[in-house]
Amino acid sequence: MGIQLHDQTLRDGHQSLLATRLRTEDMLDVAPLMDEVGFFSVEVWGGATFDAAMRYLNEDPWQRLQVLREKFKKTPLQMLLRGMNLVAYRNFPDDVVEEFIRLSRKNGIDNFRIFDALNDLRNLEVPIKAVKKYGGHAQGALSYTESPVHTVEYYVENFKKLAEMGCDSLVIKDMAGIISPRRAKEIIEGIKAAGIDLPLELHSHCSSGMTEMAYMEAIHAGIDILDTCMSPFANGVSQPPTESIVAALQSTQWDTGYDLKLLMRIREKLMVVWNKYSHLHEETLLRPDPGVLEYKIPGGMMSNMISQLRNMNALDKLPQILQEVPVVWREFGYPPLVTPMSQIVGSQSVANIIGGERYKIVPKETKDYLRGMYGRPPAPIDEDVLQKVFGPNWKDQIITVRPADLLEPELERRREELKKMGLLKKEEDVLTYTIFPDVALRFFRGEIQPEFTSKDLPLKKKVFEVDIGDTTYKVRLN
Amino acid sequence: MGIQLHDQTLRDGHQSLLATRLRTEDMLDVAPLMDEVGFFSVEVWGGATFDAAMRYLNEDPWQRLQVLREKFKKTPLQMLLRGMNLVAYRNFPDDVVEEFIRLSRKNGIDNFRIFDALNDLRNLEVPIKAVKKYGGHAQGALSYTESPVHTVEYYVENFKKLAEMGCDSLVIKDMAGIISPRRAKEIIEGIKAAGIDLPLELHSHCSSGMTEMAYMEAIHAGIDILDTCMSPFANGVSQPPTESIVAALQSTQWDTGYDLKLLMRIREKLMVVWNKYSHLHEETLLRPDPGVLEYKIPGGMMSNMISQLRNMNALDKLPQILQEVPVVWREFGYPPLVTPMSQIVGSQSVANIIGGERYKIVPKETKDYLRGMYGRPPAPIDEDVLQKVFGPNWKDQIITVRPADLLEPELERRREELKKMGLLKKEEDVLTYTIFPDVALRFFRGEIQPEFTSKDLPLKKKVFEVDIGDTTYKVRLN
Repeated sequence: MGIQLHDQTLRDGHQSLLATRLRTEDMLDVAPLMDEVGFFSVEVWGGATFDAAMRYLNEDPWQRLQVLREKFKKTPLQMLLRGMNLVAYRNFPDDVVEEFIRLSRKNGIDNFRIFDALNDLRNLEVPIKAVKKYGGHAQGALSYTESPVHTVEYYVENFKKLAEMGCDSLVIKDMAGIISPRRAKEIIEGIKAAGIDLPLELHSHCSSGMTEMAYMEAIHAGIDILDTCMSPFANGVSQPPTESIVAALQSTQWDTGYDLKLLMRIREKLMVVWNKYSHLHEETLLRPDPGVLEYKIPGGMMSNMISQLRNMNALDKLPQILQEVPVVWREFGYPPLVTPMSQIVGSQSVANIIGGERYKIVPKETKDYLRGMYGRPPAPIDEDVLQKVFGPNWKDQIITVRPADLLEPELERRREELKKMGLLKKEEDVLTYTIFPDVALRFFRGEIQPEFTSKDLPLKKKVFEVDIGDTTYKVRLN
Repeated sequence: MGIQLHDQTLRDGHQSLLATRLRTEDMLDVAPLMDEVGFFSVEVWGGATFDAAMRYLNEDPWQRLQVLREKFKKTPLQMLLRGMNLVAYRNFPDDVVEEFIRLSRKNGIDNFRIFDALNDLRNLEVPIKAVKKYGGHAQGALSYTESPVHTVEYYVENFKKLAEMGCDSLVIKDMAGIISPRRAKEIIEGIKAAGIDLPLELHSHCSSGMTEMAYMEAIHAGIDILDTCMSPFANGVSQPPTESIVAALQSTQWDTGYDLKLLMRIREKLMVVWNKYSHLHEETLLRPDPGVLEYKIPGGMMSNMISQLRNMNALDKLPQILQEVPVVWREFGYPPLVTPMSQIVGSQSVANIIGGERYKIVPKETKDYLRGMYGRPPAPIDEDVLQKVFGPNWKDQIITVRPADLLEPELERRREELKKMGLLKKEEDVLTYTIFPDVALRFFRGEIQPEFTSKDLPLKKKVFEVDIGDTTYKVRLN
């Protein structure tokens, strides 16, 4: 049986390499061609795209979904759903989660990839049930990281639970791009050996420079589906190139059967789109960075910390902070270092060193995390830390229930607010407003100015000449 | 037994990504650290570096070699030798070839990677013998391509011959980066099955985006050594990242045993060097281009043809020319599309379409190739073509001997010329002058102005603001 690919170009591709700035109009030309390839699915929605479409491009994300649904007549459309956080970074009450999934399904989403940054499966229960209720395909995701608790057994056990919770397929979600060929093989073989009989997918990024080797090992170990992006949006901190994987597997037992000529036509169209955003091309995002393997700190988290330190004029403290990160990470129970956990661990490490005393300064987000407001951490949090932060009665501060159990239903209230403001035009607007109240209001009121693209810039001539002394140098604008 | 790596950063890395512009001073800091890694070898000389050092940087390539030899106290130094072409693109007589190898060995080269663009083994005989005579390690290379004659059996048979010719190791040289995982596996297994008991190496480039998968398959198939570049000089049209391969194989049966922390220190130093040449960073060179897999035309050859067409104002003819290339390639006996063959096939294809009649215009280089002046083509050349080009008595035009058999010894004449001009300072100068007479004379006379680096440019502030109407846009200089 051939390997199948799940193309991520229109979601993770531009989220990784172009700050999520693709417009719906950029997708219209390629969508019908991509629909012909025969992909297992294409991811086109969710993640950061919901927020970015509105905030930076003045686009209604729901309309994008409707338009794409019309263009993709055969291929299942997938969205990335951040569990109880939906497409944001805070927990929403159950009524909001269920309604968001109902409307996503109604507007065209077939497959829902559902994950929780902490792999707290309680945060996946309501989303999985809602997806099944509305006839969708629920794909259960586990965030991948490496720590003393994130063993092969950990992944096998939790995938088994996801299968029991009713998932239709499973995915190892290596958002930092750190999975090695060996680990990929061990986890995949472990899952297969445990008799978990669901389609299994691997999602990774090329960040560390060894992902294609991990993909090859995953194929040997029996993976069913691989995540890729079309080559103009591939590699660097994005995913391996779709066309290359297709070509690599031709005439083998794993042949995808996809038409390489068709993929080349899609590539040509996407190159035009890629160049439309040349002002956003960042060389560092396009290059391999094996540093993540040594420091175990994802590139985005590292640059966040560096920019925090630069603002404080304390860049010289970086070496100490790099030593503090793994300590805080352990004390915090090894949360996978993905947003918002990467910011929480990073900021606390900075605060511990800059503040002169560990846990003297503790940001609100850290306190919320320590109280269990994001969910149950992979390993118990260090009790000394809890005592330092919350005092001797720290136990009273900790919740053990599912975080959303503490939230009141919100949907009706939000609907009424919007109606009162005279801004309720369609049922989807209530969700948009509930999830991103401020941006949604500015959007509804027509106050958002869409960002420019490269072609707005007056830079027809990309080579400038600069005179220095007697010499004329050529300077190229990128 | 672990896999060993052959690091290419200081030769192929900058030749692929920075137009061969690294200076000797850029290598001094990293060399002693690289010497500690335990690489099978490091390639630091030959290929295009000899010419480029003189022509663009005003550096004596022999001095570079001497300096590097001092810095690398333990690691074998390798050079890339283009068979009878040495470090240029024309054949030299045997006396020049032998003397060049003697002096390369004397100045510090241990391992000689010897190839011929056409895989005409007659062109490797003299170099291999000379390397053995002067106590060097002769690595026999076969240029990799895919054609009806370039079968697995072709490679196995020719590697067997190279082993019999006295080579110490063998390398599959996939300069276009098109080898698939399946082909890598088949060729490597074929070589091992044939009982060829020499260390076997795979050299490839990431151009097509599937090279790391091919490396993983090569490892499974029993490859001994892989070619890599340190991550700042890796990927795109260069090679897979050294650090990533090391990390990927850690704790497996193929563990290289190299120290990842040490590699990170080397990476940091090389990032500084990489940024020194930021004016040369070309996004297209840094990105995967699976187009090569569909059109079978390497990226460099494609851009050469496009620029030829642009000069002729005939870009609209490109689709016809892309159809002509495979026809010419077949008629020419499937030469691997590497310099100078890629130019010969490309220019003839352009001439055939633009000239209105096939083979009406035939450049001198093409005629030389057709006459056998570059060596024996992999398959016989189409006789109709020979007739069109040379007329009814075409057979008189064809040579069947080894091309260098037609050349007179040249060394003594060149030595006398140089002495007469008063420019002979050391024995190596005779070689420099023989191989690149014009550039060498300008170099000896101090007439070459070295090129600038990024830091010469007055661009401290890399973000410029540009006003368009009411809006100020930020424009970043790369």
